[in-house]
This record gives sequence, structure tokens and C-alpha cells, in this order.
Amino acid sequence: MGQIEPIARMVAQLSHLPGIGQKTAQRLAYHIVSMPLEEVRDLATALYQGRKAIRFCAVCGNYTDGERCTVCADEERRNGQICVVRDPRDVAALERMHDYHGRYHVLHGTLSPMDGIGPDDIHIKELLQRVQEENVQEVILATNPDIEGEATATYIARLLKPLGVRITRIAHGVPVGSDLEYADEVTLSRAFEGRREM
Amino acid sequence: MGQIEPIARMVAQLSHLPGIGQKTAQRLAYHIVSMPLEEVRDLATALYQGRKAIRFCAVCGNYTDGERCTVCADEERRNGQICVVRDPRDVAALERMHDYHGRYHVLHGTLSPMDGIGPDDIHIKELLQRVQEENVQEVILATNPDIEGEATATYIARLLKPLGVRITRIAHGVPVGSDLEYADEVTLSRAFEGRREM
Repeated sequence: MGQIEPIARMVAQLSHLPGIGQKTAQRLAYHIVSMPLEEVRDLATALYQGRKAIRFCAVCGNYTDGERCTVCADEERRNGQICVVRDPRDVAALERMHDYHGRYHVLHGTLSPMDGIGPDDIHIKELLQRVQEENVQEVILATNPDIEGEATATYIARLLKPLGVRITRIAHGVPVGSDLEYADEVTLSRAFEGRREM
Repeated sequence: MGQIEPIARMVAQLSHLPGIGQKTAQRLAYHIVSMPLEEVRDLATALYQGRKAIRFCAVCGNYTDGERCTVCADEERRNGQICVVRDPRDVAALERMHDYHGRYHVLHGTLSPMDGIGPDDIHIKELLQRVQEENVQEVILATNPDIEGEATATYIARLLKPLGVRITRIAHGVPVGSDLEYADEVTLSRAFEGRREM
């Protein structure tokens, strides 16, 4: 018979989501069909209204449902320290460590000449402006440890150097709890490079 | 900072879905937030309107968006053969094999005295009625090969016996493509029991 249209449409929509293949989408669709209608309405509303409520923080570019994000609005956070990341989800990841108490700046992308993404396509100008206007002592470059992330970090470091601000890059090395045996050569080489006195 | 409310609500809703833990729900929520609003609306609409459109087929209990399901409405399908399953999703699974051309009957549950589910709580009466009213030659019991599924199959077989209809049970055995080494004892024992001449 093939799937009836409402279920087929659910499956099609769900399988667009990352990490959700045809099989998982089908399992989810059949589960959703078996849920009480009110619960499905709550789910659908959370997704749509949630997406609709999200804006970018006017200061740092992080997700917010107000004018400024919770980090920028927090008077307790340390000024003078800006951690630069690619995506709002990186802010969420770093916040989970509970160790950083400064501010953020979200680039919304990384330099990628191959994809035609240059300095003007991501929020570098805004960062430069913040460094000049806010009393910034340190910029921590926390873009991903991949080619684009490294290139972006190098580019920004060169750009900020003349402003006399301290520029740091997060450490690369062997992840805590992992096994040396499974670490790739580049990571191991970085781990050696970054070794410290004990 | 913790998550802002719209994202936290998305994560909470998504993590109710089967097989979606906190981490996956977070990944999905951040993806949905980064999607264009119209696409999120399409997703939310597919879920809610899809769920709303679904009813149970008046004949067999399968999912449908009309009066009768696509199997029951299909004039090409063979009458006289009814395959009994627990859930509409089992119909979908069996339809994927493209080998069965008869009708279905969905019980919407299996007997489970432990959970207080007796014969009157699932659609056994309706099956009995169909066997008496339609010209049924064979009832194929395709409930799951677990305790409840077996008990339900045995119960229905006993009930239908006096009606003189042929009653069959789907074969249990080693799944195709699997490894004997990983099959459990009960499955292996069933595979021996059900062996055939070659």
C-alpha cells in the first residue's frame, strides 16, 4: 500500500533533521501518530513558537528571546574577556563547563574560501568594533580545531594584534577520558607541542 | 547561563520521543532554531495536522485518513485471508515485504494480565465478527514473538478453532542475514523445531 499521506509527510519532514534517517523517521512518525492529540500540539507548538521566539543578541550574536542574550544581560559576568565562537550552539557547549565567566562573540560561520565565505560574511567587523569600544583585555579564540576554524582564528588574531589586546587560542590535545591509541597524529602532535611542566 | 526558555522547551518536548535522549534533543533543537521559520512551520504542521488527520479504519483498525484504510479499500487485495497484528506499525512493516496480498486486523494491543489488559480491551471481538461475517479461509496470527504476543495468538487460535477456519502462526527462527552465534537459545530452538526438508 505504501504509507498514507499524513504519515508519509511526517516521515519526509522528520528525515530532514540531522541524524534522523528513514527508519528513525518512520519510528518517530508512528510514535507521534499514537500520541494524544494535545501532546502532539504541545510538541508542534514548542518547535514553531520556539523557533519564532528566537533572535540574535544585539551585542554578541548569541540566541536570545529578548534584546540581549542571558550572558550579555548578566551583570555578574566578567567584562574585558571575549570568547569568540562560530555558532550559538558553541556558546551552549562552553556554558556547560561552568568555568568561563566572561563574554562571548558569535561569528555565525567561519572563513571558507572554498564556499565563498569571506571576512565580510561573518561577524568579524562587529568583533573588531567591540574590542575597540569595550575595554577588552583578552580575546579567546574558540573556533573549531578544523581547517576553517584554524584559518579563522589566525585571521582574527592578525587583525586584532595591532589593537594591543591579548589574544589566546583554546588548547588542542588528547580529550580527557580518551585513549592515546585512538588519537590521530595531528592531535597527538598538538598535545606534545602544548605540553606543560607538572 | 542554562538554556533560554524557547530552546529548553524544545529540548524537553523532543526528549519525550522514543530513542531521543537529552544530547540528541539538544542537537535537534539547535538545528531547528537555525532552520528558516517557514521550514519549521512545515515540520510543525506536518506533525500536528498529520496526527489530527489520522483515524482508525472502520474495518480493520489500521491507520487511515479516510473511512477505510488503503488495504481495506483496495479491490485488488485477496479476501478470505486476515493477518492479525498488534499495531498499525506492524501493518506498515509487513506491507514493506510486498509478499502478502490479503487483509489485516489490528488488535491495538496484546493480552497482558500483568498490565490488566484482557480480551475485551483489545479488538478480538471485532476479529471474531469479521471471521463470521466475511468469507474467511485463513487467519494468520502475526503478533510479536514475545510472551504477550504468543499468549494472544494462542488465545485467538483457541477462540477461532470452532469456526472451522484455518489458523496459522508466522514462523519463528534465525533472522536472515544474522549470525547463529548471536541468536538466543529460544530462537535457535524454534528454528530447529520449524526446520524443513530441502
